[in-house]
Amino acid sequence: MKTTVTCSGGLDSVTLAYKVARERQLMGLVSFDYAQRHKKELVFAQKCAEDLGVPHTLIDISHVGAQLTGSALTDDIDVPEGHYAQESMTATFVPNRNAIMLSISYGVAQAQGVQAVATAVHHGDHYIYPDCRPDFIKSFEAMQYCALEGLAEIPLYTPFLNKSKADIVAEGERLGVPFSQTWSCYKGGEVHCGRCGTCVERREAFDLAGVHDPTEYADPLYWKQAVDKETSGKVA
Amino acid sequence: MKTTVTCSGGLDSVTLAYKVARERQLMGLVSFDYAQRHKKELVFAQKCAEDLGVPHTLIDISHVGAQLTGSALTDDIDVPEGHYAQESMTATFVPNRNAIMLSISYGVAQAQGVQAVATAVHHGDHYIYPDCRPDFIKSFEAMQYCALEGLAEIPLYTPFLNKSKADIVAEGERLGVPFSQTWSCYKGGEVHCGRCGTCVERREAFDLAGVHDPTEYADPLYWKQAVDKETSGKVA
Repeated sequence: MKTTVTCSGGLDSVTLAYKVARERQLMGLVSFDYAQRHKKELVFAQKCAEDLGVPHTLIDISHVGAQLTGSALTDDIDVPEGHYAQESMTATFVPNRNAIMLSISYGVAQAQGVQAVATAVHHGDHYIYPDCRPDFIKSFEAMQYCALEGLAEIPLYTPFLNKSKADIVAEGERLGVPFSQTWSCYKGGEVHCGRCGTCVERREAFDLAGVHDPTEYADPLYWKQAVDKETSGKVA
Repeated sequence: MKTTVTCSGGLDSVTLAYKVARERQLMGLVSFDYAQRHKKELVFAQKCAEDLGVPHTLIDISHVGAQLTGSALTDDIDVPEGHYAQESMTATFVPNRNAIMLSISYGVAQAQGVQAVATAVHHGDHYIYPDCRPDFIKSFEAMQYCALEGLAEIPLYTPFLNKSKADIVAEGERLGVPFSQTWSCYKGGEVHCGRCGTCVERREAFDLAGVHDPTEYADPLYWKQAVDKETSGKVA
């Protein structure tokens, strides 16, 4: 089945790209420039497309991103540190991001005659982001069936929806994903910071999966402290 | 209720803006530059916002539009002439346009604390465009409830959903809409062409509503012939 993958260049979506390349007909990767604070991850999306030998479509929606104010990912607000399940991580919510990006991906898919769109939402995102939960995915797919009725039937492929990030790491390991060529950190420094929510989540996922983490972190020890704090209920 | 209106500068959405300004708290108009062949209608959206004394947000998604190939509204394909209910009008379908624009409008609404989003889909669009039908509107609203769960509940206001364009003209007349300051024509010439699907639909709607049409058409008589052809079954 001809499938495009929405790919940020992060660990989850790059693993998804490798999975689709193995199991389906990968038609290309679609990424978005939504005026995020740093575009480092997009370089890794491009690299992933090159490695898999498929086109990379980078769609500039920076003018849209500029209207979506109030998020630490687009604005001049401090990126919160600590465990990703903390309340403070809501500062990383970009209003309606998934609905916007997926609807654009569907438009492109319909124009290009692609048969499915894949996205790497996973269980670990459910707590903070409503637009990563199963109800959203189901309702989005239903909306798209109506929007393209009589023109195309394009299912949304979300194989990680009920998987943890550790499951994704384990699957990536099986698929031979070059994890060092993926980017998670919200801060976009020279190396991963090791302190923001997504760095902590990334490092913890490798630990839980029992897979070696090749990532270089500026603060390689912080994650353990953040996880311990969270699991003991002593949320900072 | 604080409401923004997605406004193309066309007759329907300008009438909707006047309706919301009268009945609710109009917070602003949102328009999109999606690399359409001409941007003439956007000037009228700006004019409408000025007349109603509200901000006009023009969102540039031209890079998205460039990916949505295959439509006479964005590409170098001839704009079809004749009655808007004809099969040939599917050439004016821009893939997933309403899902894309509405999801962006919802992101902006959530960021700005707006309570409702209004859009001027109407019954006359149902035949050709699946993303103007009641099923789409209902499923889109359901999707947005999921996408913004716990953050915002933003209903989609579609008072024209089951109205004809003639009903909209009649309502616009009651509301004092300056119809000459609205743009329908797909071709974007000096004046309305009078021959494309949306010119024919516009002129017919004024006729059915019994309202004087102040629009200047390059070919003011063609509409009648197109309507007669359609209603007699002799579709060209």
